[in-house]
Amino acid sequence: MDFKKAELICTGSELISGKINRYVPLFSGRLGELGFRIAREHSVGDDLNAVAGMIKCALKNADLVLTCGGLGATFDDVTRQAAALALGRRLAYSKYAEQILKADYGMKELPANACAGAVSKAYGHSAGGGPAGLFGGQTANFKNQCLIIDGAKMAKNANGTAFGQIVTSGRKMLVILPGPRNEWEPMFDAFISDEIREFFKVKEGTVKTLRLKIAGLWEAQAETLLRPVMRKFKHADYTILAGPYTAEFSFTVKGKNARASSKKISAIEKACRRVLKDSVYGSGDETLEGTVGRLLEAKGATLSAAESCTGGALGSALTDVPGSSGYFMGGVTAYSNRVKERLLGVGRKTILKHGAVSGECAAEMAEGAKRLFKTDYAVAVTGIAGPGGGTEEKPVGLVHFAVTGPGGKTRRFTGNFRRTRTFIKRCAVNAALDALRKIIQ
Amino acid sequence: MDFKKAELICTGSELISGKINRYVPLFSGRLGELGFRIAREHSVGDDLNAVAGMIKCALKNADLVLTCGGLGATFDDVTRQAAALALGRRLAYSKYAEQILKADYGMKELPANACAGAVSKAYGHSAGGGPAGLFGGQTANFKNQCLIIDGAKMAKNANGTAFGQIVTSGRKMLVILPGPRNEWEPMFDAFISDEIREFFKVKEGTVKTLRLKIAGLWEAQAETLLRPVMRKFKHADYTILAGPYTAEFSFTVKGKNARASSKKISAIEKACRRVLKDSVYGSGDETLEGTVGRLLEAKGATLSAAESCTGGALGSALTDVPGSSGYFMGGVTAYSNRVKERLLGVGRKTILKHGAVSGECAAEMAEGAKRLFKTDYAVAVTGIAGPGGGTEEKPVGLVHFAVTGPGGKTRRFTGNFRRTRTFIKRCAVNAALDALRKIIQ
Repeated sequence: MDFKKAELICTGSELISGKINRYVPLFSGRLGELGFRIAREHSVGDDLNAVAGMIKCALKNADLVLTCGGLGATFDDVTRQAAALALGRRLAYSKYAEQILKADYGMKELPANACAGAVSKAYGHSAGGGPAGLFGGQTANFKNQCLIIDGAKMAKNANGTAFGQIVTSGRKMLVILPGPRNEWEPMFDAFISDEIREFFKVKEGTVKTLRLKIAGLWEAQAETLLRPVMRKFKHADYTILAGPYTAEFSFTVKGKNARASSKKISAIEKACRRVLKDSVYGSGDETLEGTVGRLLEAKGATLSAAESCTGGALGSALTDVPGSSGYFMGGVTAYSNRVKERLLGVGRKTILKHGAVSGECAAEMAEGAKRLFKTDYAVAVTGIAGPGGGTEEKPVGLVHFAVTGPGGKTRRFTGNFRRTRTFIKRCAVNAALDALRKIIQ
Repeated sequence: MDFKKAELICTGSELISGKINRYVPLFSGRLGELGFRIAREHSVGDDLNAVAGMIKCALKNADLVLTCGGLGATFDDVTRQAAALALGRRLAYSKYAEQILKADYGMKELPANACAGAVSKAYGHSAGGGPAGLFGGQTANFKNQCLIIDGAKMAKNANGTAFGQIVTSGRKMLVILPGPRNEWEPMFDAFISDEIREFFKVKEGTVKTLRLKIAGLWEAQAETLLRPVMRKFKHADYTILAGPYTAEFSFTVKGKNARASSKKISAIEKACRRVLKDSVYGSGDETLEGTVGRLLEAKGATLSAAESCTGGALGSALTDVPGSSGYFMGGVTAYSNRVKERLLGVGRKTILKHGAVSGECAAEMAEGAKRLFKTDYAVAVTGIAGPGGGTEEKPVGLVHFAVTGPGGKTRRFTGNFRRTRTFIKRCAVNAALDALRKIIQ
């Protein structure tokens, strides 16, 4: 598939020192639906020349350049100036912007320089500067926020004082966005995406992306199954992303109109589901824990958990879902064998004969949780998260699971995971959720 | 402080589509200790011209350029070629490299092209290609791995077949590293850092960084306290990174020799600790859960947890520490009130009078867990994680904690957190760990 090229420039000194940049996938998804692919992403410190140079370089290479961040009101917020410099345009004070800000913040006069937070801003992340920072303590220089690049279109900020700006030059477009997610995200979705579509003549709905969420297959297994689909539908664009015990397979198509692209996307989805079968647990932003919750809610059923090696991570995942208190009654983390026996009623003999990491122990843990919490379903996890504690027979990464349901039948299964302690825990959580999903269904 | 400029180029299509790049802090820390600051980070897809162009652009701007990734054996691994192109140098087959690979993998002949994984590699993350991919299924074209840039120094890869390469040109240095962390990290630490130090004449130990780990203060509060320190020690370089209920304050100094820089760093550390007091829980890679574990181990004491709104996340954090089974006996996640009453022995009256989200309920939960698990210490968390369930009196983000210890005294405290459900959960977990640390001490 033919994509137009976009480049993303994220600014902020924290991004090149210690903060992890989590914005790329958010932009990548949105731009994909507009027919763009991010060719390069750049994280640049708050330095006028470094940002200006980057914008220039990106505009040479790409059709569309987006900057994110550096629109706050303090000395180290330089993106506006850098963009003007890169484009060779003037930065002018906009009376119109002033009027909007005055109206929004109920003022007759904008405070010229109330920049008490300047020193702190140099080190902080909460850039972009609404009238109050995330945890307070930062005030904004409103007048700076009214500087607009010559010829730019302004985009209103629903959650802050920094306007977005769109500048076009020849066949290229530069979009300047504030840094905080709660500022740029609504701005992009309400305004910027339409502007991009119009300027680049992308008809709405002609580019469509679907992300299929997969569990229970490793990336390589999923790829093997999906290869015939990719061969058959050559004109689509594919990516696969591996997670712990999960993967995400996404494809993007382009059609003459919305109907044509929808038709293409459903044909591919159908073909994928045919080969992946029940490994597909959802699409888009759906999560395993959300899927489990949805199924329990639909059945009016309740759930409890008995955890050993996951230490509570399974319960935590389940309760990441808003409203999970409706079906998740609670859990026992039985890290010691005595707790497994006393609280969950696991037989001492079971542990002596089979060990705490065994299918037998998992089954008794699940049954114990079901009794204790009086729930319809219960799930249990016991394994060796490492790095120590492994043997030849029971290596690090071996995890036993059990799920028991309303019928009284307890199902057991096993996982073999690798890598670090925390990764093994996350794999075990996802494997447990995946089993729950398949059994509750 | 004067830093030399470095730029980091991470290659891989997954980095510009959906994968989050977690490498920047790892490089930033290492380069800081060598007297370098990352001026810009670039994530670039597997495209020869895009990578070559980026290397050229970075070498213009920075003293030191590092590439990471794209040294696998398949068609989309282009970094070697791109670097040669950018430098205008030849890529030559190295007999020496071949000998090393043959010896390492016990072969008489390198397999010329055993690249069955080519199709899958185009989509995958496990680039760099050891003799077997993470989950198998990928084999490497060994001959490609022997291509070395004219004049480059080779760096051996302890965990894969891709050699690192160091090329110098005038006063600049280009370092080419494999993508997987278990390949580039040992290579950097064992070999590359010394090469950088030698070429740029950085004496060992002249640049030192200390990262102080802080809990219980918001970023803005920590900044306010630290401002006098930053003013007093002007020649150091400071960054502060905010986390959930935590922050990391790091400073870098340069001295004439190792002794001088050590002296400077301890002076700043002392000044910081004087103002931050017991908000400092550790330094470097220490974690809150690790600190709690260390304190419990030192006392030979045990711990249990009773969780409501954190849903098991506190137990999961505690058990992220290897060896935590020695002191963490387990926990109860009491998501429903009935479980709070029946399992933890919280009084029905307590819940009726004060509500499940109250200091009284938290205290009874902690005491219940201590009884149930027969531990020396117990911690309890109950709160409103949102987005629903808040009232004017008890808003979303209100969390009550209790810690009970060997003396029988139960201490209570409260937190008020903001933002999303998962962020509030993480704040609550860290606040609970912080309280435990302060009380066990």
